[in-house]
Amino acid sequence: MTSYKYPKELKKAIDELANESSYQSVCHRHLHNQPMPSTQQLKEIVDLLREIIFPGYFGHSEVRCESIHYYLGVNTERVFHLLVDQIHAGLCFSCSGDESIPSMEIRNQAFDMATRFVACLPELRRKLSTDVEAAFLGDPAAQSRGEVIFCYPAIRAITNYRIAHALLTLGVPLIPRMISEMAHSETGIDIHPNAQIGESFTIDHGTGVVIGATSIIGKNVKLFQGVTLGAKSFPLDENGNPIKGIPRHPIVQDDVIIYAQATILGRITVGAGSTIGGNVWVTNNVPPGSKIVQFKPKEMLYSDGGGI
Amino acid sequence: MTSYKYPKELKKAIDELANESSYQSVCHRHLHNQPMPSTQQLKEIVDLLREIIFPGYFGHSEVRCESIHYYLGVNTERVFHLLVDQIHAGLCFSCSGDESIPSMEIRNQAFDMATRFVACLPELRRKLSTDVEAAFLGDPAAQSRGEVIFCYPAIRAITNYRIAHALLTLGVPLIPRMISEMAHSETGIDIHPNAQIGESFTIDHGTGVVIGATSIIGKNVKLFQGVTLGAKSFPLDENGNPIKGIPRHPIVQDDVIIYAQATILGRITVGAGSTIGGNVWVTNNVPPGSKIVQFKPKEMLYSDGGGI
Amino acid sequence: MTSYKYPKELKKAIDELANESSYQSVCHRHLHNQPMPSTQQLKEIVDLLREIIFPGYFGHSEVRCESIHYYLGVNTERVFHLLVDQIHAGLCFSCSGDESIPSMEIRNQAFDMATRFVACLPELRRKLSTDVEAAFLGDPAAQSRGEVIFCYPAIRAITNYRIAHALLTLGVPLIPRMISEMAHSETGIDIHPNAQIGESFTIDHGTGVVIGATSIIGKNVKLFQGVTLGAKSFPLDENGNPIKGIPRHPIVQDDVIIYAQATILGRITVGAGSTIGGNVWVTNNVPPGSKIVQFKPKEMLYSDGGGI
Amino acid sequence: MTSYKYPKELKKAIDELANESSYQSVCHRHLHNQPMPSTQQLKEIVDLLREIIFPGYFGHSEVRCESIHYYLGVNTERVFHLLVDQIHAGLCFSCSGDESIPSMEIRNQAFDMATRFVACLPELRRKLSTDVEAAFLGDPAAQSRGEVIFCYPAIRAITNYRIAHALLTLGVPLIPRMISEMAHSETGIDIHPNAQIGESFTIDHGTGVVIGATSIIGKNVKLFQGVTLGAKSFPLDENGNPIKGIPRHPIVQDDVIIYAQATILGRITVGAGSTIGGNVWVTNNVPPGSKIVQFKPKEMLYSDGGGI
Amino acid sequence: MTSYKYPKELKKAIDELANESSYQSVCHRHLHNQPMPSTQQLKEIVDLLREIIFPGYFGHSEVRCESIHYYLGVNTERVFHLLVDQIHAGLCFSCSGDESIPSMEIRNQAFDMATRFVACLPELRRKLSTDVEAAFLGDPAAQSRGEVIFCYPAIRAITNYRIAHALLTLGVPLIPRMISEMAHSETGIDIHPNAQIGESFTIDHGTGVVIGATSIIGKNVKLFQGVTLGAKSFPLDENGNPIKGIPRHPIVQDDVIIYAQATILGRITVGAGSTIGGNVWVTNNVPPGSKIVQFKPKEMLYSDGGGI
Amino acid sequence: MTSYKYPKELKKAIDELANESSYQSVCHRHLHNQPMPSTQQLKEIVDLLREIIFPGYFGHSEVRCESIHYYLGVNTERVFHLLVDQIHAGLCFSCSGDESIPSMEIRNQAFDMATRFVACLPELRRKLSTDVEAAFLGDPAAQSRGEVIFCYPAIRAITNYRIAHALLTLGVPLIPRMISEMAHSETGIDIHPNAQIGESFTIDHGTGVVIGATSIIGKNVKLFQGVTLGAKSFPLDENGNPIKGIPRHPIVQDDVIIYAQATILGRITVGAGSTIGGNVWVTNNVPPGSKIVQFKPKEMLYSDGGGI
Repeated sequence: MTSYKYPKELKKAIDELANESSYQSVCHRHLHNQPMPSTQQLKEIVDLLREIIFPGYFGHSEVRCESIHYYLGVNTERVFHLLVDQIHAGLCFSCSGDESIPSMEIRNQAFDMATRFVACLPELRRKLSTDVEAAFLGDPAAQSRGEVIFCYPAIRAITNYRIAHALLTLGVPLIPRMISEMAHSETGIDIHPNAQIGESFTIDHGTGVVIGATSIIGKNVKLFQGVTLGAKSFPLDENGNPIKGIPRHPIVQDDVIIYAQATILGRITVGAGSTIGGNVWVTNNVPPGSKIVQFKPKEMLYSDGGGI
Repeated sequence: MTSYKYPKELKKAIDELANESSYQSVCHRHLHNQPMPSTQQLKEIVDLLREIIFPGYFGHSEVRCESIHYYLGVNTERVFHLLVDQIHAGLCFSCSGDESIPSMEIRNQAFDMATRFVACLPELRRKLSTDVEAAFLGDPAAQSRGEVIFCYPAIRAITNYRIAHALLTLGVPLIPRMISEMAHSETGIDIHPNAQIGESFTIDHGTGVVIGATSIIGKNVKLFQGVTLGAKSFPLDENGNPIKGIPRHPIVQDDVIIYAQATILGRITVGAGSTIGGNVWVTNNVPPGSKIVQFKPKEMLYSDGGGI
Repeated sequence: MTSYKYPKELKKAIDELANESSYQSVCHRHLHNQPMPSTQQLKEIVDLLREIIFPGYFGHSEVRCESIHYYLGVNTERVFHLLVDQIHAGLCFSCSGDESIPSMEIRNQAFDMATRFVACLPELRRKLSTDVEAAFLGDPAAQSRGEVIFCYPAIRAITNYRIAHALLTLGVPLIPRMISEMAHSETGIDIHPNAQIGESFTIDHGTGVVIGATSIIGKNVKLFQGVTLGAKSFPLDENGNPIKGIPRHPIVQDDVIIYAQATILGRITVGAGSTIGGNVWVTNNVPPGSKIVQFKPKEMLYSDGGGI
Repeated sequence: MTSYKYPKELKKAIDELANESSYQSVCHRHLHNQPMPSTQQLKEIVDLLREIIFPGYFGHSEVRCESIHYYLGVNTERVFHLLVDQIHAGLCFSCSGDESIPSMEIRNQAFDMATRFVACLPELRRKLSTDVEAAFLGDPAAQSRGEVIFCYPAIRAITNYRIAHALLTLGVPLIPRMISEMAHSETGIDIHPNAQIGESFTIDHGTGVVIGATSIIGKNVKLFQGVTLGAKSFPLDENGNPIKGIPRHPIVQDDVIIYAQATILGRITVGAGSTIGGNVWVTNNVPPGSKIVQFKPKEMLYSDGGGI
Repeated sequence: MTSYKYPKELKKAIDELANESSYQSVCHRHLHNQPMPSTQQLKEIVDLLREIIFPGYFGHSEVRCESIHYYLGVNTERVFHLLVDQIHAGLCFSCSGDESIPSMEIRNQAFDMATRFVACLPELRRKLSTDVEAAFLGDPAAQSRGEVIFCYPAIRAITNYRIAHALLTLGVPLIPRMISEMAHSETGIDIHPNAQIGESFTIDHGTGVVIGATSIIGKNVKLFQGVTLGAKSFPLDENGNPIKGIPRHPIVQDDVIIYAQATILGRITVGAGSTIGGNVWVTNNVPPGSKIVQFKPKEMLYSDGGGI
Repeated sequence: MTSYKYPKELKKAIDELANESSYQSVCHRHLHNQPMPSTQQLKEIVDLLREIIFPGYFGHSEVRCESIHYYLGVNTERVFHLLVDQIHAGLCFSCSGDESIPSMEIRNQAFDMATRFVACLPELRRKLSTDVEAAFLGDPAAQSRGEVIFCYPAIRAITNYRIAHALLTLGVPLIPRMISEMAHSETGIDIHPNAQIGESFTIDHGTGVVIGATSIIGKNVKLFQGVTLGAKSFPLDENGNPIKGIPRHPIVQDDVIIYAQATILGRITVGAGSTIGGNVWVTNNVPPGSKIVQFKPKEMLYSDGGGI
């Protein structure tokens, strides 16, 4: 607004930042100059998939049986095209540097993956309807299944997870992770797309939940906010890098409930029908049907170092 | 960009998704074809209410005493009209299926509820000013009351809660829950609009806080991040559905402080003036004036299954 | 849509809200009528800084060595201008009421602070590259450094922290806090800009992490989700207000790992190379090389007050 | 940016402008408080209709025979809903003041008119395809029919005219006029929706063309830019107001060409197959097969009042 | 999408364009680095002024007497602030190069001009209401005064003209011209803000109308599309530059009608009550009460050089 | 808002519109499924080119010599990429149906054309600066060259023309025509990109000007609003289609002035230094140095068929 000058420090900083030695470790190079995956387009993809799976809840259209076919036709084709682009971008991101793969071959691979994903949509909807049912039955505060679909962050997070898991199963790189991070930012629920999760899964409140990459969760499991299914320390290879792909997260069997802030670490098994109380730290197997709770807290009788 | 074909799998998936047996359990039907509540309009409502309650902090207008009246006049009328629409949509959502209620009657009910809500605004502002004061006095890092209003996520979450609670008290369905979920997504603080919370309430940092639907919180209470005021297991009716409306969350009396990650479960009472330490799991009554802390953690002397 | 009337309650509420006695405690007055800091412009600043620091990952441009200089030139000048405006707004916000400071002097101060900030950008990039490296080496699920930069919420939160810390070190008020709150809302990670954090810092998952204003963190430290580095109760002055600026948060030395949901409170020291297990509550010093874990949870043999 | 004061002249002007005697002659009152017709929604209606009529040229969708049905289904339903709203608004605008008509009756009338309009769409497309053909055959500069549809302002203006004329024929008030004004602003071609225009109609360049409300144009007529089919002076009623609805614009029979800037005024007939040269002023009947041109201009031999 | 290289021609062109000898004649330098006038903000100013002058027709608000005061208060203050900025920008544009004028002095001048402009608004509304009345009475196709305000391009063009003329009369540079160009682009009507135009002025259709800078138009004048009130050749000064400010456009007295495409050139007078027919070229005085028409066109009996 | 039903007419219309016999003559098929040229991207191209050519007038950046190089670098690369896409789309549009041309070959052709266009930019700027100079010297109302660049529609139209002409000269199809239509819609000035126009060209006011595809205009020519340089009737081939590419528009030599609404038709020559008066119709050669004006209009002494 008033008189800006152009300080010489600007020019100096720009020159340093444009020096290859400064940027080379933090700068991305694209294969075939393909654009990066687009957060905005992935957001549109997720919005469209929610609209396809739960007709009438998301999107702008009123649903009636006379015209639902048209909307599904348009939205499915749109989501298909967007997916081809984003999968293509994800494939190029992952093999950046390897220019030997012809561009058209990558394109065809993306086309094929997107096609197979779309074919999964009816099954995805069926699974998610079991999750909705579980959330409704499990929460006395829920007024209707409609309220669950429309308002519950867990449904959004699990929807993104089931989409991302289906894509990852088809071999799509990077994109599944981005889709699950979108739900993480929106809901505070962080489910790695590589986790395996059975039907009728539900999470109450959800903020702070973490489900690690090699977790296996059975049917009819319920988690509360702040639950971690994590890894303990992991082995390194001879170069000191973590060895990838080793199972390192818990197996949670059917009909388990885990209360708020519990931390379950390592490739242990929580047996079917168990209940894990809040705020506990579990690093050993839990037999089926167990109830685990924290040691009863003590009442302080004296001031402990200045008091809390 | 390159040659898309139209894979036959698309058509097949679309046909399956448009089959009534696939969509009937996850598809919403509206009463009177009223549109669904709109997240976007609710966001505008919340933005306007923040602007009305805290003049000069939110919104684009500079505030001066000569013209504040005009801005309040315009914003209040705008928020009133938007509320009539959204309450109307909420009422139609909740009684979807019952076509016997005349559309105009629902409209009048929405009009009446919105009118009564607007009449509460001065009292809402007064209560929120006690929350601001409490946050300022309770945080050595706060430089000014202005910084608290402008930056603290707790103020945003409590503002949404007090708005949502006022609406729910007037009998508005669904909308209060959506408004509190908006704050949940923005701040990680999940306060059910049905909870009762006294004046001078504050939450520090706040991510992961959960305050359940039948909680009762007194005056001058302070929570830290990750605190849960939750329910234990709940009774089912003869059909196996949870019985709605039973008091099942804690009562927290005046002047209580609860530290990070504490989990307080069930219809218990935390007595006035108590302090609950972090990471504890409390399922029994706490007498007034108590200090509760976790058992002192142990130092591990041996490797426990590969170490953490 | 249908016939709105204008209820008389609106006029009454507007009149009350426009009464000075109602708004005076929650209404901001600006020095020199300078506009408030703008969340939208701060968002643009952060987006531009991410684009400058990690070329090719954020922003719309494809990066090639022939033209990277132009992009850095344009983005750096743009960010500089926006920063002058926002620092100016922050300075006016902080000294609202003191009209004795000439407007132009404040402007010059903002100009000078923005200039010095821009000069720090190459060093900011260098530090952040150590954080990226630490996150990549520390997570077996990470496929590439690129995935870490692009997807990991911790990188976003730490980037905002390092920006905010640099601004705060230059004496900029309010703006650093707003920038860290933006990351808090986006990622659930709440790092106070006044904290001191060494290189090669990483946070896994991250939701619910809180790092208080006087924390000091060494090099090569790793935190998991839900970790709190917080304060215990703090002394009040003779007026009952908290005394500002006293060191009250932990010192965490080099090479420490702290697992999920651990709560470390008060000006204690966690010695170099220690490992803190999840869900613990630590309020005393921890010697170097310690391993601290929660008491092993008990298995419940009987129903405890209705069960969890 | 710098110190605004609030000048007292503002308050004075606001008070005057808010005085009913000032605003009563220029202020609209709505029947049933129905919103005004929306220029933005009408723009969306026109965009959708262009997309429906000329698939693949407008809108974002790529057209293929496998999915064109879905797109037409979605767009037609969308345009139908928007039209019901806008026709409703138009009906309320026209009878503002007459509160005796029940709101629901007007709604039903709008619904009925929109339904009948949609039924005309296939015929509208057929007529417009004759206009495209005429433009292509009549312009040596046109490379393809596709270029004509995509680029020629005449096609946009005639499309709007044919839409507006169909609506006006159904009795819709105001909206047709707004749709033709939108084309007027976009192309400089002003065709009154009440004019009657045959098939294979084309306008070259078009800026400044005016076709009055009672004009009748046959088939295969071509106009150039700046042509006016206007009215001469018109009779007044006993109150000095113009008498509405009297035929007062030309009849142009089949196969006529009218060159640039010609002005044809009054209820005269230009006979079939005639050619009217540019810049002429015609106020009498023209027999079939005529060629009319301006008197040959003179060459000036002397300075005429200072020269041009 | 596919492999872009970075052609060396780009670098060469950029270097040439960045050479001062290339850009110096077409590059703007701002006084005090004030931003350029903003087309977007001027558009907002015009939209707000239309909303202020014609309540209920433009803008989003429904008008009712209970709240019109609030809307006028907010809109008038908003337009005032925007005008101060744009007038400031206009003043800096006009005296670019003369750095001797202090920035604050220019700001105060802009503040003062904007204040005086706002004080004119009630009179501007009154004058425009006479124009609306004239358009309604003069067009048999107009259904209501409301339709005239809402749809007629002439009202938009004359509104912009009367705003621009008021600003120019107060000494505001550049901005009036920009406001009239906005109407020119929207309607095809080009009225120079320096022209003087009496009450009850109307233009039918309007595309192509030009009213030059020194024109003087009486009361109750009506123009049709394509009418020019222009200048003949103009004297040059000793350097061959046109001498500025000499009266060179027509004087049109009260109650004159000028038909389509007529061209009236030079400082001549068209006497009161005259009628000028279409397509004529008039460069001499016209006595009061005259009727001027083009020579009757000839019918061609033979082909004139290939025919038209 | 109220109860929409789904009228059966909708389904019927949709089915008819989706019938291939209905849409086949008005539906575009793309070569290689390349998207259509994008009006929005062309708008961005033109905006960027205006910003490149006239630094500081368009776009958001303040210009200073220290950083102009960066802005030109970024804008030129951006415009280059957009042009490659749009030229590619234009090439595919033009050869739709001919699938024999490999997609990559078309891409390379687009890349090459865009490269050569960018190389022309310095010369384009030089030519346009002569046009600005001519407009400034030719208009006594112009206050500065800056005002001419910023406000005069002729500069916008001529800029688009010179861009479009350069592209057409390189062999780019469709896109040049779209760029000139954008200016036509914005300014009412319709210059075919194939016309040849010398330096120091200017148009005053401009609405309604038409310059046909084979026109040739010398240096230092000035046109006024409504001037047509058009074609008379044109020969047809044996199929009745117009023969493309025959010279059919006027040649206007150096230093000619043509006044408002003059219509010059056919491949005639207007000799150097001539002046053509307004509203004339010229279809024969005009010798150098001529002054041509309309026959003096007659004054009507009697009512001519009801009067005008």
